[in-house]
Amino acid sequence: MATTLDDPGVQALLAKKNHAVVSTHNEDGSIHSTVVWVDVEDGRLAVNSAVGRKWPTNLDRDPTIALVVYDEDNPYDYVEVRGTARGTTEGADGHIDRLAQKYMGADSYPFRQAGEQRITYLVEPALIRHAKQG
Amino acid sequence: MATTLDDPGVQALLAKKNHAVVSTHNEDGSIHSTVVWVDVEDGRLAVNSAVGRKWPTNLDRDPTIALVVYDEDNPYDYVEVRGTARGTTEGADGHIDRLAQKYMGADSYPFRQAGEQRITYLVEPALIRHAKQG
Repeated sequence: MATTLDDPGVQALLAKKNHAVVSTHNEDGSIHSTVVWVDVEDGRLAVNSAVGRKWPTNLDRDPTIALVVYDEDNPYDYVEVRGTARGTTEGADGHIDRLAQKYMGADSYPFRQAGEQRITYLVEPALIRHAKQG
Repeated sequence: MATTLDDPGVQALLAKKNHAVVSTHNEDGSIHSTVVWVDVEDGRLAVNSAVGRKWPTNLDRDPTIALVVYDEDNPYDYVEVRGTARGTTEGADGHIDRLAQKYMGADSYPFRQAGEQRITYLVEPALIRHAKQG
């Protein structure tokens, strides 16, 4: 059913180190889906990548995004978020460190590559849907 | 990297009871993503629903589909399949029973609703991408 990020069930899904499947539009109209880390930053769903990679490039051209986060201990509990996302490099280095802390227990992101610039996409939701069974 | 369903790593992902996130196009161009069961039927990726639900209705209007299956024990091992999908009601009742066997260990699907007609979507892949870390 339609809900908000304030829903305790949705908050629980996002607080755990469950991964997100993020989907964007390729230039040819096909859908690109991939697995990413996710958290909530200042009340908004946030994902992180490096400038120039495929899905961030897709979002810069077409901000349409959908994310699904399911509970890896109970996939019948999941949230879908549809909306748009805009990228910012401001604060993106700190953000990837917070994600590395959440998912790896690391103080800082250990996989930085020479010359890469991190970018955070904040999601403006048009619909948040929470499903839960079992 | 681009691969095929015959890739042993991809086969292993699909043989386990990992769930799929399936993405389709809503009428307004937004992306609909949801969590489903998946298997391989006669060499093709197959998902199942009931006629009239949202994502099957989307596919009947626009066959564009993307699926991600990640290893629920290691989300850094995942396969993305992009392509098109067409639905058939033929054999769809047997198919949902096989999925119930795979995911629930049940002899037959226990959640049938009165009057529903099952439908199987077989995926014609345009791209299969397997990523594995860790």
